Amino acid sequence: MERWIELNNKVLAGSVVDTRYDTEALQAFFQEKVNPNTVFFHNLAEKVRYMVEHGLWDAELFTRYSPQDVQQVFEKAYGYKFRFKAFMGAYKFYSEYATMTPDRSRWLERYEDRMALTALARSETVEGALDLVHHLVNQTFTPATPTLMNSGKANTGRLVSCFLLQDCTDNLDSITKTLSFVAELSKGGGGIGVEVSNLRARGESLRGIQNVTKGVMGVAKMLDNMLRYADQAGQRPGAGAIYLSVMHADFGDTLNAKKIATDEDARLKTLSVGATIPDVFLDKVRAGEDIFQFYPHSLWQETGREFTDIDWTREYQTLADNPNIRKKRVSARRVLEDIAVTQGESGYPYLLFEGNANRVNPIPNVGSIKMSNLCSEILQPTLPSYFHPYGQESKDRVGLDVSCNLASLVIERAMESRDLGSVVGTAIRMLDNVARSTSIHEVPAVRRANDEMRSIGLGAMGLHSFLAKSELIYGSPEALEFCDVFFAAMHYHARKASMEIARDTGFVFRGFEGSRYQSGEHFAQYLERDFRPVTPEVAALFVGQTLPTRQDWERLVADIRTHGLAHSFVMAVAPTGSISYVSHASASVMPVTEKVETRTSNKARTIYPMPHLSADTEWYYEEAYDMDQRRVIDTVATIQKHVDQGISCTLFIPSSATTRDLQRYYLYAYSRGVKTLYYTRLRKMSIEECLTCAV
Amino acid sequence: MERWIELNNKVLAGSVVDTRYDTEALQAFFQEKVNPNTVFFHNLAEKVRYMVEHGLWDAELFTRYSPQDVQQVFEKAYGYKFRFKAFMGAYKFYSEYATMTPDRSRWLERYEDRMALTALARSETVEGALDLVHHLVNQTFTPATPTLMNSGKANTGRLVSCFLLQDCTDNLDSITKTLSFVAELSKGGGGIGVEVSNLRARGESLRGIQNVTKGVMGVAKMLDNMLRYADQAGQRPGAGAIYLSVMHADFGDTLNAKKIATDEDARLKTLSVGATIPDVFLDKVRAGEDIFQFYPHSLWQETGREFTDIDWTREYQTLADNPNIRKKRVSARRVLEDIAVTQGESGYPYLLFEGNANRVNPIPNVGSIKMSNLCSEILQPTLPSYFHPYGQESKDRVGLDVSCNLASLVIERAMESRDLGSVVGTAIRMLDNVARSTSIHEVPAVRRANDEMRSIGLGAMGLHSFLAKSELIYGSPEALEFCDVFFAAMHYHARKASMEIARDTGFVFRGFEGSRYQSGEHFAQYLERDFRPVTPEVAALFVGQTLPTRQDWERLVADIRTHGLAHSFVMAVAPTGSISYVSHASASVMPVTEKVETRTSNKARTIYPMPHLSADTEWYYEEAYDMDQRRVIDTVATIQKHVDQGISCTLFIPSSATTRDLQRYYLYAYSRGVKTLYYTRLRKMSIEECLTCAV
Ligand SMILES: Nc1ncnc2c1ncn2[C@@H]1O[C@H](COP(=O)(O)OP(=O)(O)OP(=O)(O)O)[C@@H](O)[C@H]1O
Ligand SMILES: Nc1ncnc2c1ncn2[C@@H]1O[C@H](COP(=O)(O)OP(=O)(O)OP(=O)(O)O)[C@@H](O)[C@H]1O
Ligand SMILES: Nc1ncnc2c1ncn2[C@@H]1O[C@H](COP(=O)(O)OP(=O)(O)O)[C@@H](O)[C@H]1O
Ligand SMILES: Nc1ncnc2c1ncn2[C@@H]1O[C@H](COP(=O)(O)OP(=O)(O)O)[C@@H](O)[C@H]1O
Ligand SMILES: [Mg+2]
Ligand SMILES: [Mg+2]
Repeated sequence: MERWIELNNKVLAGSVVDTRYDTEALQAFFQEKVNPNTVFFHNLAEKVRYMVEHGLWDAELFTRYSPQDVQQVFEKAYGYKFRFKAFMGAYKFYSEYATMTPDRSRWLERYEDRMALTALARSETVEGALDLVHHLVNQTFTPATPTLMNSGKANTGRLVSCFLLQDCTDNLDSITKTLSFVAELSKGGGGIGVEVSNLRARGESLRGIQNVTKGVMGVAKMLDNMLRYADQAGQRPGAGAIYLSVMHADFGDTLNAKKIATDEDARLKTLSVGATIPDVFLDKVRAGEDIFQFYPHSLWQETGREFTDIDWTREYQTLADNPNIRKKRVSARRVLEDIAVTQGESGYPYLLFEGNANRVNPIPNVGSIKMSNLCSEILQPTLPSYFHPYGQESKDRVGLDVSCNLASLVIERAMESRDLGSVVGTAIRMLDNVARSTSIHEVPAVRRANDEMRSIGLGAMGLHSFLAKSELIYGSPEALEFCDVFFAAMHYHARKASMEIARDTGFVFRGFEGSRYQSGEHFAQYLERDFRPVTPEVAALFVGQTLPTRQDWERLVADIRTHGLAHSFVMAVAPTGSISYVSHASASVMPVTEKVETRTSNKARTIYPMPHLSADTEWYYEEAYDMDQRRVIDTVATIQKHVDQGISCTLFIPSSATTRDLQRYYLYAYSRGVKTLYYTRLRKMSIEECLTCAV
Repeated sequence: MERWIELNNKVLAGSVVDTRYDTEALQAFFQEKVNPNTVFFHNLAEKVRYMVEHGLWDAELFTRYSPQDVQQVFEKAYGYKFRFKAFMGAYKFYSEYATMTPDRSRWLERYEDRMALTALARSETVEGALDLVHHLVNQTFTPATPTLMNSGKANTGRLVSCFLLQDCTDNLDSITKTLSFVAELSKGGGGIGVEVSNLRARGESLRGIQNVTKGVMGVAKMLDNMLRYADQAGQRPGAGAIYLSVMHADFGDTLNAKKIATDEDARLKTLSVGATIPDVFLDKVRAGEDIFQFYPHSLWQETGREFTDIDWTREYQTLADNPNIRKKRVSARRVLEDIAVTQGESGYPYLLFEGNANRVNPIPNVGSIKMSNLCSEILQPTLPSYFHPYGQESKDRVGLDVSCNLASLVIERAMESRDLGSVVGTAIRMLDNVARSTSIHEVPAVRRANDEMRSIGLGAMGLHSFLAKSELIYGSPEALEFCDVFFAAMHYHARKASMEIARDTGFVFRGFEGSRYQSGEHFAQYLERDFRPVTPEVAALFVGQTLPTRQDWERLVADIRTHGLAHSFVMAVAPTGSISYVSHASASVMPVTEKVETRTSNKARTIYPMPHLSADTEWYYEEAYDMDQRRVIDTVATIQKHVDQGISCTLFIPSSATTRDLQRYYLYAYSRGVKTLYYTRLRKMSIEECLTCAV
């Protein structure tokens, strides 16, 4: 075993957790592995020349900056004397993010190089790059994996984490086109959500012939296969999810596809499944009544409307009463029970509470929210596309998909900076750069979304590690108060930066006109009261920080009305499953699952004590499985008020929990205004499984 | 049990086969089932009106002909008083070909209606239709299923049986495009062959990253899935085959995909597999030497050439000697043994002897023959296509695929007509009409093939039933002599008709210029000697028929040189797995597998005594499994001399046969100039399996 792994493993070898071994492991890793195996260059010019000549760094980048500028940015990066605080962060960064020689025997980039290169690539001016490199090296925020991994490189994957496709309309050409889009996007990296509720159900008619269609599962099987085929060149598996409405006649089939006892032919191995749940369904659950699930083709034949075009809550009764529409009667409670059973077995499906998402949709003038993404934090209106066979592209009607770039504040580091405004401003400008640097012309409705909507998603990580360090209990009233203040301020700065970009560049996203941003409705809560700390514990955390006041918001709302906004959405809280390790923070806004994580990769077992774990903080690191999940839900509900999109919210269930408990959590989350529930993690899952899910 | 089935089953109930029960079953079927359940119309005008108004018959057709003309054609059809000779023919026709009411409770078409409608649809003038309806009703030849089933109908499947795609070149866009083409073609009916040898092998590099590609099987799995998804609206399963060269590094993987013990993930359930075998491979088998299998991407990186662009026999040694090309060494004999083992287990792969096919390729100026189709009777040059992502269609390079329409002479009926020339002429003109009525614009290289090459494939069925009726032994010297004379004459008339169409319409297929047709080389054998009967037995069969002489051929070759040919290919002998039942003939040119066939469909067991089975003919109905397969191979080799494309040649193997026997047959077939071997049927296969293969 390698010495650094051996040392790292000693953390758990004794009777108490001994984190000093982790520091020794970190030192050994650098001294014995990274340093001796880093390619030596005499100077930066030589390094740049080498990297460009070997097709590793993007040559174009070095025409945009003078050698002096480049030098300045690199020097600034190295000047901070950044040191990883845990073995895991360094190990993860150097195994997954840093560029290596093609045979992967030696490093060509160090941490500072990657950050400097990212800063240069994601800025337009040297001043911008110098500002950005400060935040990147010091990790006040961290870009999502694709942006951090690929910025400034030649011929690599894309910068974007997230795509949502609503192209899979009910005809074979749109379906095969969607398959090719999924291949294209998966190949370049990025998780893909695909809305499939418009597909006619199994057993509907085809060209008038009864009972022949294969329904949603036929398409899902092909998507599943395609994701496995077109992976990220073996580096990260292709990943995607379908979203299907619980009102669709095939809903039960897709649940079955995730059950353990399902036979090979009906199982979805790679594809995740999300359930879209309208209010009317939950009303029927509460009332203990039956509900109808509908057949989309029959619906279309009778009404001329697509499934996702229906407001299921408002129109349910009319459609249920129409005898010409084919449907099947099911018990709403039994369907919810089936969802819970399936989650208990597999973690899936994700749940999207359509009503909650759409009640606060800031741009209902563009469309309604019908789906989410692979990690259920992206929530934006989409419009279906209609494609035609080869050679008839001019007839295609291109709808609106979603392309969303992510980054996350590292709460502890952002708080330490005492200047949330500049952290958030820099992060938003970086994300704006990612959007402008992206043009995925191969997928026309994604390209259109990126060009016209320019949506971005700034989130946060390290909530639990920050609370533990601050000696606050996750989910406690004080912790909730902190979240309320922090995310309100973050929202203010994010929206302000978006307004400023609109003001300074003249670019306003399409759909601003007529939106609830323009009317100010979306900001109503901030005009009613201040979001400032009340309790002394929380007030202490914000000492030295200027928090936005009601007056600030009033001014901002007025400025927005005048200048518009550059981005249709600015916030989304991603799981940060990978990047949180590099950033020495607990993942996202979730509680930690273990005080000391044990990861088993194909190579070795590694030990990861939570950031700042000590005798003092240990008590505040209550493990997620031991909590009443209402504390998680309350935390998410509090943050959700300030997030225009969604939050990846995992439920952590001990093996003693029943499916009734799960259902109670669903209803509680729904009542608290939570928009989505990401998957459910069970304590009894083996570690490998958990980690694969969490990648 | 229905009475006609009961009666039919009595054929085998007693100690001897009693075919009188079959006649009774036939009578009962019409009197008790068909006649009472046929929708009654007062007259033809009423029927036409009804069928057009209900969207069943093509309205446009009835604008092309006057009501009197239509009347004349229908009257002629009914005038022959056609009677099915066996229960099976009637049962098959009325269950699968005749149009029924949407609920399938009653018939809207009778045999004569379908034939009259086909005649009208496939002709331009009433004279043409009157000529064609004569041949159709009397079954001197029969169109393949898609043409007979769909002609004259509104909104139904296509007319074409067969597509070959060489679009699956080694990039993701071409692969996903191929998937969409397969969906499009499969949906419209038609078997699809896909050439996949240009795909890089499993474990090759991708964008410079080593060992990450999934190779041919990754693509094959998706094709397999797509065929199951996009079937013919539940009426006939989607069907397709991939062709892979035995020189490709993934060849072993695709063989494994057809083995019984293969696990689910690696199995191809729907997709058939064909092996393309160059001479050099068989040379190594004979010499007992090792051979290299090559990695296409490495080949391409080193030489800039595609796998299918290589003449493996001529260039093998140079490529084998090049150390920069990745390859693996295998024993040629062991590979052949593995082929035989896999055939023994599953019937697959088909074999295509590239050398034999290309040595007599009439249009090498267009390209080489690299693949075949679902039933391995279509052999034409193809050229790969290169596709680009959405929106960049203008960059696409459209290659040359194959679209081929089939029909088959019914040997007995064609011989009885005493005028092979007019039978063949009418058949060729009908196929020409099918080609001109087809424009599959959704698949550009198929469209190009149809427009530019207009290939057609006239074959023959009922060889064994004709020989038995004529008291000749299948595969005997006299039978071979008959084949030689019959197919030489058929070739003459087919080619003459193609020349006449070129002459009369001015359309000459692209590539005629520079072909071996133009030079006359393709017809050399006919200029050397006459193909006329020698033995009195065979001469007696041709009494009253004018056979083409050497002088006729000389004139034809001169006319071809002057006027060109309208079709790149005119002949191909299909298996006639369905249509031979309707035509009361044994299938294709194969020996019968049983004197009395027992078919079990989902509904009932039916019994089918071979045409003209009697105490007199029984002796001539030796069953295929009891024959030395060299008699089959000799028959096919004899016919092949006169067929520009190929022949579906099945080997029939008793359970006592060894894989050595199989290999000996392969080598024998190869040495006799046979171009393809279709699958191998084993006596021990269950009947259901055989029938699915044979559909
Ligand atoms: N051949 C097929 N086999 C199975 N499913 C099919 C087939 N063709 C289409 N489908 C499915 O049926 C639905 C309708 O497809 P499409 O609109 O392309 O067919 P269509 O020919 O227009 O028939 P319709 O008139 O019923 O819409 C889609 O969900 C599609 O995937
Ligand atoms: N993401 C992927 N995962 C697995 N296989 C892939 C992926 N992308 C492409 N392939 C396969 O690798 C081959 C090359 O595809 P393609 O030409 O589209 O890739 P590329 O980006 O041009 O890479 P290269 O430069 O290696 O050709 C094809 O067989 C293709 O299906
Ligand atoms: N295996 C994967 N392949 C492709 N995209 C992924 C994968 N895992 C996550 N994503 C995408 O990245 C987004 C952010 O997820 P997150 O766990 O925060 O990633 P990271 O920590 O690597 O930045 C997700 O919403 C999803 O769209
Ligand atoms: N199940 C099928 N689906 C689609 N095409 C088929 C199928 N079976 C055969 N074909 C196509 O029809 C061609 C002719 O096959 P054949 O058995 O002669 O059909 P038929 O007797 O129905 O006319 C084959 O070469 C193949 O391309
Ligand atoms: Mg349709
Ligand atoms: Mg390529």
